[in-house]
Amino acid sequence: MQNPFFIKKNNVKINEILTNLNLSKQKKNYVIKDIKDLDSANINDITFFHSIKYLDSLKKTKCKLLITNKKFALFIPKKINVIYVQNILLSVSKITALFYPEALSDNFDSGVRDPNKKKYPGIKFGKNVLLGKNVRIGKKCSIGHNTIIEKNVKIGENCNIGSNVIIKNTIIGKNTNILDGAILGKKGFGFFPEKLKNIRYPHVGMVIVGNNVEIGCNNTIDRGSLTNTIIGDGTFLDNQVHIAHNVKIGKNCIITGQVGFAGSSTIGDRVMIGGQSGISGHITIGDNVQIGGGSGVIKNISSNSKVMGYPAKNIRNFLKENKLND
Amino acid sequence: MQNPFFIKKNNVKINEILTNLNLSKQKKNYVIKDIKDLDSANINDITFFHSIKYLDSLKKTKCKLLITNKKFALFIPKKINVIYVQNILLSVSKITALFYPEALSDNFDSGVRDPNKKKYPGIKFGKNVLLGKNVRIGKKCSIGHNTIIEKNVKIGENCNIGSNVIIKNTIIGKNTNILDGAILGKKGFGFFPEKLKNIRYPHVGMVIVGNNVEIGCNNTIDRGSLTNTIIGDGTFLDNQVHIAHNVKIGKNCIITGQVGFAGSSTIGDRVMIGGQSGISGHITIGDNVQIGGGSGVIKNISSNSKVMGYPAKNIRNFLKENKLND
Amino acid sequence: MQNPFFIKKNNVKINEILTNLNLSKQKKNYVIKDIKDLDSANINDITFFHSIKYLDSLKKTKCKLLITNKKFALFIPKKINVIYVQNILLSVSKITALFYPEALSDNFDSGVRDPNKKKYPGIKFGKNVLLGKNVRIGKKCSIGHNTIIEKNVKIGENCNIGSNVIIKNTIIGKNTNILDGAILGKKGFGFFPEKLKNIRYPHVGMVIVGNNVEIGCNNTIDRGSLTNTIIGDGTFLDNQVHIAHNVKIGKNCIITGQVGFAGSSTIGDRVMIGGQSGISGHITIGDNVQIGGGSGVIKNISSNSKVMGYPAKNIRNFLKENKLND
Repeated sequence: MQNPFFIKKNNVKINEILTNLNLSKQKKNYVIKDIKDLDSANINDITFFHSIKYLDSLKKTKCKLLITNKKFALFIPKKINVIYVQNILLSVSKITALFYPEALSDNFDSGVRDPNKKKYPGIKFGKNVLLGKNVRIGKKCSIGHNTIIEKNVKIGENCNIGSNVIIKNTIIGKNTNILDGAILGKKGFGFFPEKLKNIRYPHVGMVIVGNNVEIGCNNTIDRGSLTNTIIGDGTFLDNQVHIAHNVKIGKNCIITGQVGFAGSSTIGDRVMIGGQSGISGHITIGDNVQIGGGSGVIKNISSNSKVMGYPAKNIRNFLKENKLND
Repeated sequence: MQNPFFIKKNNVKINEILTNLNLSKQKKNYVIKDIKDLDSANINDITFFHSIKYLDSLKKTKCKLLITNKKFALFIPKKINVIYVQNILLSVSKITALFYPEALSDNFDSGVRDPNKKKYPGIKFGKNVLLGKNVRIGKKCSIGHNTIIEKNVKIGENCNIGSNVIIKNTIIGKNTNILDGAILGKKGFGFFPEKLKNIRYPHVGMVIVGNNVEIGCNNTIDRGSLTNTIIGDGTFLDNQVHIAHNVKIGKNCIITGQVGFAGSSTIGDRVMIGGQSGISGHITIGDNVQIGGGSGVIKNISSNSKVMGYPAKNIRNFLKENKLND
Repeated sequence: MQNPFFIKKNNVKINEILTNLNLSKQKKNYVIKDIKDLDSANINDITFFHSIKYLDSLKKTKCKLLITNKKFALFIPKKINVIYVQNILLSVSKITALFYPEALSDNFDSGVRDPNKKKYPGIKFGKNVLLGKNVRIGKKCSIGHNTIIEKNVKIGENCNIGSNVIIKNTIIGKNTNILDGAILGKKGFGFFPEKLKNIRYPHVGMVIVGNNVEIGCNNTIDRGSLTNTIIGDGTFLDNQVHIAHNVKIGKNCIITGQVGFAGSSTIGDRVMIGGQSGISGHITIGDNVQIGGGSGVIKNISSNSKVMGYPAKNIRNFLKENKLND
């Protein structure tokens, strides 16, 4: 999918990247198309490897140019050209800023206007709605009072957007409800801590919300950094849920109130998560998993498991240890 | 109390219900007045029994017609006529939709307008306030900027409503404060998971907020399904509290920041709950209970107890096990 | 720093205070300048001592007049004049109300207006922005749609304030971002539970936000009661963070999503706190502390520690006890 939200510079060459990283230029200077993660990078892109958690993706990547640290040298397939750096993510951040020079700014869209009713026939608008340029809204949608939809957002047909909602950098399917006060598409909480001033990480990903989804009141769903944040078809989120950047939630999941997801985790289909549970970053939860309320999930959970506790464990053990199974 | 928010169809007959559930009609076709839970159902209503947690209510109900599953057959008093179904709550949901055909839609109130100052003398309105039809606001109230009060809401005298607040399907007592960004009266997170599309459960209940209450910033308080969500007199809620549908909180409780309540629990009077605690669904907490911060309460707590932990246990045991009592 | 938000009565005399507390007047009636906590009170102020946690502050205070209970009599240095009362905090609350008669009301600022563009040259305003009287905004700032900035707020240069933000009783440094839906400066959740009606505690403190800070979406940051709530330079807060009154967070801290702070705790510099962790009230966390996600911190943590768990303990012990270190 072409990213409609961030303008990519198309003439970034390898030597521009090397210079930016304070490395020596190479003889043959050629164009790099984009920077992407291992899974989505193509043959003309540049990618990166920063954790052995992504060894599988490394083996499968189509990409031929990769940034990493020397400590990972032995893992890199021989067919891939490698640029070794000290701090992988900081380097990725700098290169991303080369490709997407405007992605660091996350200010409000000052180009929003009152809806032009002629342009949106049949859409039911509340009071004080603000729409950015090139917003597409499907048939039979309703958009509540004071809601702000920034530029380039696309909403499928038959969606109901509540009041006081803010949507940016997001693509929404059909028959989906976004409830009051939800905020979608803000940049993720990604940056590099520095003594004087934290260095913000560019977030050029989107939020992609499927069909028949419900997003609860006061939810915060951040957009991805190099990949997208995804909420699958038929998934329902209760109130005050927080979803950090790059999280991918499958289909028909049920996520109850105040659940939080740290960044870059992947959740399968038909997963049920009880209230106030927290899901750590960079982990994988399989299909049909049931997670009891209040759990803290800090490692991968295989499909069809039932877990509970902090840290989350097999629910039978949790109940047994707490003498709750009698 | 007559529900001012949802229009009830008054001519629902028993055979219409049976047909809707794919059951055979009976000879004598008569009018059913309403669908209610065991506690509030009257002699001409229909009710349901779906968990042995409600055995006490089953014994006391005035209702003569009940939906349940065959596995509960032995519990049902002989004087009650029973309709046996496979999925009790799904059947209840279908019947509720028969009585309240408009309750499934939870879209914003498009009939809101700027306040007519003549109609509301002495009320202090902020900028951009939107009021629905038939909103009643008591003397000496103030309503903050950008706040939306949808149709039929009733607010007692001397209440202060903050800015960016959304109130629907709610009745508020006097001397009560609703702070900035709170959302009251949205439908609960109740539905039946289905492969293709979750079936939403109608929520025909209200939120009833007592006198001298404080509702904190960015709180989300959902309305009830067949019964009401209730916040008792003198109860104070801190910021970012989430209260799911049908929860009933007693008088003079103190609920600190980020506490969450799953649906249908009952909390006594003078209960104190520390920050980030979670209260499971369908449980009962007595009077004068103190719950330490961060607790996860997953079973009933008797009056005058002090508990802490996840799962919550007697606070002495919690402190002892964690060597904190020295 | 002179508090710009609350008008102090300057002629409060000792006998007015004694009368207000139902105590006998003394012969020599003299003017008291202000009421402050032990750390910030000066020689002509009145202060209070209500917990042995503040013994260090008691020894160092410059103040010569103090409210306490007889049970603390032995701790009070001889050079300090003491007023003994039954309920210390309730008495402090009454005296605060004498000095700051308007501080109990926390209603919205009805004096806000559309921004006068001539008064704020070079500032980028969204739609429907509302500004109170005497708001100062630095150069190159942007203020998002529907945002409300109440009277006397001061914002340094180069700050980006998002949409739907509410700011009151707050002073913000430069280069700081406040993201969508955040609410800063509301009074804290401080009051005295009473049978008929809780007695609200006056909050005459501010929120002071440093330079290069980021405050996440839907955060709630309450102002202080007698002291201030402080967010130090370079500290970043993720979404849905709740910070109660009087909390003081140091520099360059990283606070991830849904973390909550109960009142009056002090956090050092470069502290990292994982998602959904809770920090109890009146505790001290040193510098460079790392707190794992989901933790519940209920006692002081010394500098350079790594902790996790509920209650939080040394992270090695947490991992060992949960067999996660293999």
